[in-house]
Amino acid sequence: MMNKKILLSENDIPRSWYNIVADMKNKPLPPLHPGTKKPLEVSDLEPIFATELARQELNDTDRWIEIPEPIRELYKNYRPTPLVRAYGLEKALDTPAHIYFKNESVSPVGSHKLNSAIAQAYYCKEQGITNITTETGAGQWGAALSYAANHFGLDLAVYMVKISYHQKPYRRSIMQTYGAEVIASPSMSTKAGRKIITENPNYQGSLGTAISEAVELALNTPNCRYTLGSVLNHVSLHQTIIGLEAEKQMEMAGEYPDVVIGCFGGGSNFSGITFPFLRHKLTGGKDIRLVAAEPASCPKLTRGKFEYDFGDEVGYTPLLPMYTLGHNFAPANIHAGGLRYHGAGTIVSQLKKDGYIEAVDVKQLDTFEAAILFAKSEGIIPAPESSHAIYAAIQEALKAKEEGRQKTILFNLSGHGLIDMASYDRYFDGELSNHELSDEEIAKTTDMLEKLV
Amino acid sequence: MMNKKILLSENDIPRSWYNIVADMKNKPLPPLHPGTKKPLEVSDLEPIFATELARQELNDTDRWIEIPEPIRELYKNYRPTPLVRAYGLEKALDTPAHIYFKNESVSPVGSHKLNSAIAQAYYCKEQGITNITTETGAGQWGAALSYAANHFGLDLAVYMVKISYHQKPYRRSIMQTYGAEVIASPSMSTKAGRKIITENPNYQGSLGTAISEAVELALNTPNCRYTLGSVLNHVSLHQTIIGLEAEKQMEMAGEYPDVVIGCFGGGSNFSGITFPFLRHKLTGGKDIRLVAAEPASCPKLTRGKFEYDFGDEVGYTPLLPMYTLGHNFAPANIHAGGLRYHGAGTIVSQLKKDGYIEAVDVKQLDTFEAAILFAKSEGIIPAPESSHAIYAAIQEALKAKEEGRQKTILFNLSGHGLIDMASYDRYFDGELSNHELSDEEIAKTTDMLEKLV
Repeated sequence: MMNKKILLSENDIPRSWYNIVADMKNKPLPPLHPGTKKPLEVSDLEPIFATELARQELNDTDRWIEIPEPIRELYKNYRPTPLVRAYGLEKALDTPAHIYFKNESVSPVGSHKLNSAIAQAYYCKEQGITNITTETGAGQWGAALSYAANHFGLDLAVYMVKISYHQKPYRRSIMQTYGAEVIASPSMSTKAGRKIITENPNYQGSLGTAISEAVELALNTPNCRYTLGSVLNHVSLHQTIIGLEAEKQMEMAGEYPDVVIGCFGGGSNFSGITFPFLRHKLTGGKDIRLVAAEPASCPKLTRGKFEYDFGDEVGYTPLLPMYTLGHNFAPANIHAGGLRYHGAGTIVSQLKKDGYIEAVDVKQLDTFEAAILFAKSEGIIPAPESSHAIYAAIQEALKAKEEGRQKTILFNLSGHGLIDMASYDRYFDGELSNHELSDEEIAKTTDMLEKLV
Repeated sequence: MMNKKILLSENDIPRSWYNIVADMKNKPLPPLHPGTKKPLEVSDLEPIFATELARQELNDTDRWIEIPEPIRELYKNYRPTPLVRAYGLEKALDTPAHIYFKNESVSPVGSHKLNSAIAQAYYCKEQGITNITTETGAGQWGAALSYAANHFGLDLAVYMVKISYHQKPYRRSIMQTYGAEVIASPSMSTKAGRKIITENPNYQGSLGTAISEAVELALNTPNCRYTLGSVLNHVSLHQTIIGLEAEKQMEMAGEYPDVVIGCFGGGSNFSGITFPFLRHKLTGGKDIRLVAAEPASCPKLTRGKFEYDFGDEVGYTPLLPMYTLGHNFAPANIHAGGLRYHGAGTIVSQLKKDGYIEAVDVKQLDTFEAAILFAKSEGIIPAPESSHAIYAAIQEALKAKEEGRQKTILFNLSGHGLIDMASYDRYFDGELSNHELSDEEIAKTTDMLEKLV
């Protein structure tokens, strides 16, 4: 039998991240200062982010950014992650397609988020910053940053979306085990939170709101910076380590993917798995399809507008050119908490606009059905977020079967679901629904966008 | 920098398990039929276990038992597991000791239990058995067997110790995701359960009780067999894959352990990590210390009696010669649910009696303190069971520091704690205690043993 897992050694951990912007003919439009509406410069971002991260955010010329040795060293705690040939799933689907997944769930916090958390904590520490803040949706990012902040000796405050704070109490405990402070958002600890609670006391929170709170705290705390787990260019940059490893591993398997799939919230794991493959297409090399799988309840890529919008609920962040449902869109309380974000990162948005990537929206019930098939055939219970990618991969494999042709499919298993079993319980109990949106609902939330710039 | 993880390839998965009994000068005393009190034969065990498992249970001559190819194939889903040099923990302890751990937590169900679950389900399937039953304490074994039963297409009923059923609801959900039926034990579904509930309606269950129920169901269901996740010889046999891999990996690291440590419940992970190293000592090779770390609330190896005793609460099982606290000992509700068992496997008991292995008992609060130090220094949140081994390893490392000498320590990280965060929460909230036993309590529970044979 062939190997199931295609493994690299610690020496094979990439030495640079891939900055796709350098290869894009149409660069993303610049982020704008929310007050002046002028293109941002590094100095505008420095009060919020560590300087090196601000530089990476606006770097559109350097194709490769060297990974500092202390980051590579900490990556060795779990990287390189395995690439797995999904023989069990192929058999269950009776498909001629070859299905591979990159297994980021082997990270000690259970998801890919650690790849950027380690980098961000490192650059903050190097600059002498002592305190950091962040937001978290499902808790995956918060857990990862807690791990990294603890390692580098930084104090961390995490604003956790209220719905997840209650649905996923154990992710909160994980953050606390690593020593982080966790606050349910919206909270009364910030102006932004108090305003939202006053207007809507029962609001269960969103990533947009939690970002407002975390940014506000960072700006009002000495020697403190904010960090973000998705959406931004520097986060996508760090996550390219996923695809760079996967590229080597596909080569070892003697195959090249026809399609690469990632679930889509703000874009971090999708960018991570796809950008290194897309670089060949951008530079005239091999063609490939890239598919973002987003929830039908939060369909910014498939049904949103491409406009300048705020990254947060209240409007503290720069204006970003992106596919968005509007910064005050309140997504339904689906269990894939990490995908409940109103906008797509600016790089992905530009690539989508230019036809380089595709998007599909997936209904919540379909994702759980796909997750259980995957658990039974491959043995790993996936995170509800990752199940969106699994569903899309299954569709691709079934299409290949219908067409009777071989196809090579690669998707990113961004995390496992062992801390999400309450969500599975609710699915088994028939308590979940799809939360699809009507055209009126979409129009209502996006209509205000034209007035922003 | 050196590699942190020492990795083997799928081809390096051992082709045989190691049967230590073949190398023991003093073989364990024979298990006795509970009715006739005569030594058991394979035919006595066949109504309960698959025939091949019954043969393995009583095999005291074959040193190596070949691993069937379909089992090795399924092992590839997560094996070989990494051996990790715990640089972070060494630094935190400022010790000259080199600390290694075998990371069994990377299995898709989060623990080493899958190693035997896969083997047992396979042999049942091969024999044409359609239904299996089992018990589970913390849920680790039940989750593993659910995974394996699903893979081989067997129907599975799991009796889960009531305290864990409530403390660890997500382990239950994991079993259900793989398609198993889960019943809280003691239950009203068996005579054994009804008897116990009648006598003590608030009893929170124990492994001994759950075993009685699972065996009873197996004996009363057509084409059904019982399976067990620890204690028995064939389980220890399957788990030796841990130590066989670790031995190769230590060789790759250029070191040989001075001491090997495993937490101790019934013996499965302890036997697994230690027996392959002990084989050299038994056959006149290199000396080595082997340490079993058991809970102070359930100290059979350190404070129990070596006597014939039943494996279960009610007395359905054969009489086994072992260190025991008495089959009706009701252990305190500690969070290391997998270690709440009254007896030690017969092989380990004989080895302990003959001075080949040592045992230490560890207080619950000390295990959580060790767990948090491990989480912060190595990044992995350990299962409460595994934290007993971590505590013992830390003590060895601190002793090395005190004595100012190098020492190589290997322990088994039998599982991660991501599904045990409720236990960590209770520790943080100061709700846990040590549940140490007085000499009177020990005497009271072991005094009846002398009358059994």
